[in-house]
Amino acid sequence: MAGAMETSPLALPFPDLAPISGVRIGTASVPYKNWTRDCVTLVEFAPGTVVAGVTTQSKCPSPEVELCRAKLPGGRARGLIVNAGNSNAFTGAAGRAAAEAQAARVAQVLGCDAAQVFSASTGVIGVPLPVALALDGVDKAHARLGTGDWLAATNAIGTTDTFPKAASTSAMVGGRRVTLVGIIKGSGMIAPDMATMLGFIFTDAAIAPALWQQMLNAAVAETFNCITVDSDTSTSDTVLAFATGAAGNPELASMDDAGADALAAALTDLCRQLAILVVRDGEGAQKLIEVTVTGAVDVASARRIAMSIANSPLLKTAIAGGDANWGRVVMAVGKAGEPAERDLLSIRFGETLVAQGGAVVPGYDEAPVAAHLAGQEVRIGVDLGLGPGRARVWTCDLTHGYISINADYRS
Amino acid sequence: MAGAMETSPLALPFPDLAPISGVRIGTASVPYKNWTRDCVTLVEFAPGTVVAGVTTQSKCPSPEVELCRAKLPGGRARGLIVNAGNSNAFTGAAGRAAAEAQAARVAQVLGCDAAQVFSASTGVIGVPLPVALALDGVDKAHARLGTGDWLAATNAIGTTDTFPKAASTSAMVGGRRVTLVGIIKGSGMIAPDMATMLGFIFTDAAIAPALWQQMLNAAVAETFNCITVDSDTSTSDTVLAFATGAAGNPELASMDDAGADALAAALTDLCRQLAILVVRDGEGAQKLIEVTVTGAVDVASARRIAMSIANSPLLKTAIAGGDANWGRVVMAVGKAGEPAERDLLSIRFGETLVAQGGAVVPGYDEAPVAAHLAGQEVRIGVDLGLGPGRARVWTCDLTHGYISINADYRS
Repeated sequence: MAGAMETSPLALPFPDLAPISGVRIGTASVPYKNWTRDCVTLVEFAPGTVVAGVTTQSKCPSPEVELCRAKLPGGRARGLIVNAGNSNAFTGAAGRAAAEAQAARVAQVLGCDAAQVFSASTGVIGVPLPVALALDGVDKAHARLGTGDWLAATNAIGTTDTFPKAASTSAMVGGRRVTLVGIIKGSGMIAPDMATMLGFIFTDAAIAPALWQQMLNAAVAETFNCITVDSDTSTSDTVLAFATGAAGNPELASMDDAGADALAAALTDLCRQLAILVVRDGEGAQKLIEVTVTGAVDVASARRIAMSIANSPLLKTAIAGGDANWGRVVMAVGKAGEPAERDLLSIRFGETLVAQGGAVVPGYDEAPVAAHLAGQEVRIGVDLGLGPGRARVWTCDLTHGYISINADYRS
Repeated sequence: MAGAMETSPLALPFPDLAPISGVRIGTASVPYKNWTRDCVTLVEFAPGTVVAGVTTQSKCPSPEVELCRAKLPGGRARGLIVNAGNSNAFTGAAGRAAAEAQAARVAQVLGCDAAQVFSASTGVIGVPLPVALALDGVDKAHARLGTGDWLAATNAIGTTDTFPKAASTSAMVGGRRVTLVGIIKGSGMIAPDMATMLGFIFTDAAIAPALWQQMLNAAVAETFNCITVDSDTSTSDTVLAFATGAAGNPELASMDDAGADALAAALTDLCRQLAILVVRDGEGAQKLIEVTVTGAVDVASARRIAMSIANSPLLKTAIAGGDANWGRVVMAVGKAGEPAERDLLSIRFGETLVAQGGAVVPGYDEAPVAAHLAGQEVRIGVDLGLGPGRARVWTCDLTHGYISINADYRS
């Protein structure tokens, strides 16, 4: 960790994580920045490992993102290289060449095809990844490959995260227990540069590439795509999921196969844990906010309304101030551009119904709401009364800490 | 003014404003809040006055907005009533009845049809406008109708604005000089409740209702719809424009009529002045930011990209910190969801080209950029290199002041 920031008050302890058979990890230090900590992470996968991935929607992605997009259709991975301290984004041809050179070195040391080496970088943008350091990092990390110190890897992929973020779960698939481990760096403490979320998921399940991608897409839609810190989107956001097959279950090829539901549920659960950890490390976050929208015309509409609420600076500052300002919820619903009928709207803070039928509830008592808002975990519920659409998203409050991190600190 | 806030460092002095023939104004004090200042504004228009208007896009508008929407197709106005201190928003049937009762009282005292009385309210939401006070306000303001103290009216429509905002201009139409005056209250200092922008424009030009509405729509599109403080949208935003016809020019009925272009240009200029004043009073604003996007595929795309930049908390905090963080501009372009080619993108701060062709310019010198960012007026230019689309929008930086106003102050 960069060390300058205090640990988020919403931090959770690092969990116990088992190794994943077929995954070897090495970390190393190179001077991308004036850090002494490890900042290069190399992961070697057993032959046949399947990969799926989701990258940023940004129209200005980093070269690493472009390389991932090009390689993902192949569905197989032997290596992953992650750089922290330099995102290599917006660096033109030089950056692209550096990313390709580093991937080629990984292919060389692992004895595999570069088309099966995946890359991710996070940190300063606009400075091409220094090739010599990048290659040196591969060599050093390769020399340290082992069965996996998850905490070391989690720390090595971080930039200004205030705590290491990881989670695990398991599922029974075809009579075998398969394990899933995820590590993530947040878009949280993003000084001195820009938000990047990098998430890496590892499992020993055996699964066909197309089905694994399908499961990841579905999981991301209701987890990573349902969190927001400040509505901004990185040029480098990447989630990659690797399945080594070492658990020995019969390879899943269809959602109809026995155990596919269980694996998909476990993957979604893991992604949700990781996504909420990112919010818990949001810049300046003092409170975790869960927004649940029900009664929208459909799921997409519910999600847009929920995100409109979660992205509203006025709502987020009200929560920071412990202010039960339900009028700002009305405002955020109204601005979402989605079907909404003011006179059907109801709003809850925690368990308390605050507004219903276009007006505050009769005899509204703010006391239980104020008590709920005084806690670290705030729940806002909105029912639109129009249809079956529902969605849940997570964000954090907007505080002086956010401003300090993003305005007062200089790059 | 509410008095609790310091005047914005970006405030401009109140301009000299001439009376508009056919417009009479009266202001009054009633205790909607514990204010002693005037907070009810009544405007009487000469018979035949034409009205055009644009209201919030919110799906949860106030009753006053609903009434304006219902009456605008009539195209004629005899009265305007504005309440400050209570927005009457999200108040259900009681709020609707209160707004209708107040408009009926205005119609009674002015001797006109209530269908020609327009209403706007701003302030606390969720509390129905107190009918007795609202009617009393009409009577008191009616007793004080005069040829127009613009400063008194501007102060009376304000809530927590830190300075009174108005502008004027003129145009030659059909051989007559016509005058335009606009007063506005900002979505700026919006504590303790929510952003509302109310703008009222008055001219003595003679113009047909359909053409006046057409001109206002065009002016709003590139002025009020091109400003943002925090991306939030009020349930009560309203711009109404009244044309008394007292200047005696031949009534304009088509953009082909002589002088129509001049009036349209003057109206747009006036709206731009008023819109930028709102940004200058943005919550916590220390810097005015102008974002110009060129080279987009079309105007709509240019505007969405410009608004993506202007609404980015990361960019706005960087500007607050005087940080030439052009990477955040790249990020905001990338997340806009509009056509953009990273390797064609160029970015300027002030006059300085910072990035071009997908990378920082060779030998980039941050000194002139830092000097530009140290000023109160910051210009960001983005060229996409794709087409003819261009747009210009205005915003302010995101500072500790915003957080203090919106989180620390309690309603």
